[in-house]
Amino acid sequence: MYTALDRQWMSEALAEAQKALYLANPNPRVGCVIVKDGQVIGRGFTQQVGGPHAEIQALANAKAIGKDPTGSTIYVTLEPCCHTGRTPPCVDALIAAKPAKVIAAMDDPNPLVAGNGLEKLKVAGIEVQCGLMASEAQALNRGFISRMTRGLPWVRLKIAASLDGKTALPNGESQWITGSLARADGHHWRAQACAILTGVGTVKEDDPILNVRDVQTQRQPWRIIVDSKLETPLTAKILNDVDQSGVIIVCANVDSLDSQQKAKAFEARGIEVIAMANNFGKVDLPKLFAYLAKELEMNEIHVESGFKLNGSMLREGCVDELLLYYAPFFIGEGIGMANVPNLNSLNSRQDWKVIDQCLIGDDFRLRLIKR
Amino acid sequence: MYTALDRQWMSEALAEAQKALYLANPNPRVGCVIVKDGQVIGRGFTQQVGGPHAEIQALANAKAIGKDPTGSTIYVTLEPCCHTGRTPPCVDALIAAKPAKVIAAMDDPNPLVAGNGLEKLKVAGIEVQCGLMASEAQALNRGFISRMTRGLPWVRLKIAASLDGKTALPNGESQWITGSLARADGHHWRAQACAILTGVGTVKEDDPILNVRDVQTQRQPWRIIVDSKLETPLTAKILNDVDQSGVIIVCANVDSLDSQQKAKAFEARGIEVIAMANNFGKVDLPKLFAYLAKELEMNEIHVESGFKLNGSMLREGCVDELLLYYAPFFIGEGIGMANVPNLNSLNSRQDWKVIDQCLIGDDFRLRLIKR
Repeated sequence: MYTALDRQWMSEALAEAQKALYLANPNPRVGCVIVKDGQVIGRGFTQQVGGPHAEIQALANAKAIGKDPTGSTIYVTLEPCCHTGRTPPCVDALIAAKPAKVIAAMDDPNPLVAGNGLEKLKVAGIEVQCGLMASEAQALNRGFISRMTRGLPWVRLKIAASLDGKTALPNGESQWITGSLARADGHHWRAQACAILTGVGTVKEDDPILNVRDVQTQRQPWRIIVDSKLETPLTAKILNDVDQSGVIIVCANVDSLDSQQKAKAFEARGIEVIAMANNFGKVDLPKLFAYLAKELEMNEIHVESGFKLNGSMLREGCVDELLLYYAPFFIGEGIGMANVPNLNSLNSRQDWKVIDQCLIGDDFRLRLIKR
Repeated sequence: MYTALDRQWMSEALAEAQKALYLANPNPRVGCVIVKDGQVIGRGFTQQVGGPHAEIQALANAKAIGKDPTGSTIYVTLEPCCHTGRTPPCVDALIAAKPAKVIAAMDDPNPLVAGNGLEKLKVAGIEVQCGLMASEAQALNRGFISRMTRGLPWVRLKIAASLDGKTALPNGESQWITGSLARADGHHWRAQACAILTGVGTVKEDDPILNVRDVQTQRQPWRIIVDSKLETPLTAKILNDVDQSGVIIVCANVDSLDSQQKAKAFEARGIEVIAMANNFGKVDLPKLFAYLAKELEMNEIHVESGFKLNGSMLREGCVDELLLYYAPFFIGEGIGMANVPNLNSLNSRQDWKVIDQCLIGDDFRLRLIKR
């Protein structure tokens, strides 16, 4: 059904999509390549939110170099949209460009599209194929697919530990467990996320900035602090530069006068405060993630937190992916990876599945998803 | 200097040596391939101790199929021996076979050989080269090289743990953390060792047999129990079948009447008892390993022990290689990997170097050596 050349051009379209990795959120990362007479005549990828989608970019690229897409084959990593969102439907622009064929890597999981985009192209007399290199295309957009199909973001929990699973010395010292290359890799994952989430404990102990520094990006993720009792110090570094990288503090409730005053002080600094309690007076994490997906269109959340919040996240089933870095030494007594409920029997274990493994500098990285 | 064909034949010699992996101890694993007119006319690998070395096997193989090695090139993964050990010198047999050339992967680290074997071949008018694929040949014989150059065995510490570095539940349950494929892989490493070493704590808690079962082998390693106070129960499974797989119990001393009686009871069962105390009344581990190398010609020791002995081994610098299996789940509170001294500062950490990583079934295996 597909030729080796089809795979080659779709690979190039995926390489285009990769360029949108830090940029496109909350839109999916999409790449597009227009091929005519065995030559690429246009390329493009999704721009920052509100900007053009990949197909529009590729058509503009072809036009800019004086090429006519009539009769071409267009490779696109996601079904073209057929609804008016922040920009007009891409299918209309594609139909106007008169390609002979459109090959998509996957259907758009967005229920507003979900096959309708491809159908509209077919009705317009364009040959359509879908499914080439689908798994590669899906891997690029786990977050977008999650939000569209589950109403939840894809939540990635990052933990850096010693070989014996300790994240810090007993005195709290944790800078730095892993080496500089692993830390830069961590920033690569931060940069992909719509938000970086942490707990008030980490804010108080480590005073992190939690923005993206070690990789180049045009877009900074939101920063979210889970802070049931609004204990984040106003002097915390994470509260700076909210104009570049917004901050949301999620507390349990703002019932008391004290908490209302605290919330006001945060809001005066341009920080959003959300109250979302569960029955135990803590932040309702599952509800929070549903909120982040539905109200703030967040596809991917990158969590960098400590023993307690890591444990709550795992216990409440909020983690979709583990991003673990192991540094090649033993700590001995120290702070563990996550306050998970103790196993009573090995039969009741909850297994994960390793999807990726590599050395990064001297450290070891393991990625796992739910089994 | 070497041709692509040289590399191919040496690869075949290395593949022969690999067949001696479970067999040759305490001799090095050596493979030999005899090539004449572009054809392999003989192959061989080191047999069980006292049996023929690889070169003799390969010459016998050529003879058996009616081939004459005169004028051939002989590829051997270790310099041929020139001394009379349990068998006569291989160089004499090689000289008698009249090859045109001998290519060795590496010098014999045995000070009784150490270049003299190759020299003797040269003197006999045979062209000699050495060093082709040396690192592959060295990797096959880390234990033999260690014993010859350091007077110590190569000590490999195996630990199977959860993602958060726990080897057992708080109640001690540890069967099984890893899956069946990882456990079979563990037997592959056991089978290579001259001895499998454990502590009395593990014997009492898990009652393991500690022989090789999941892989085929003609040779069972020794089993060694570090047991300062001779507390190994006479009913322990590890004390069975000593005729197939000998058992050595290492205690601190046999000064008391009680310990002498215990030692006698073990010896009556065919179990060796060795006393080797350090200044703290515990087993002197560095001294033990020197003894195992010098007196019992042990090249490789495979350690499968628990929290306490793992810690002592690491603390006293006795571990050359870590063989770590991580199973893809969290345990939470439980028993740690090793009772190492607590770090006071991340600057005082002792780093290891990852030399190998792979998935085995659902589990993850990491091998590290001292940096």
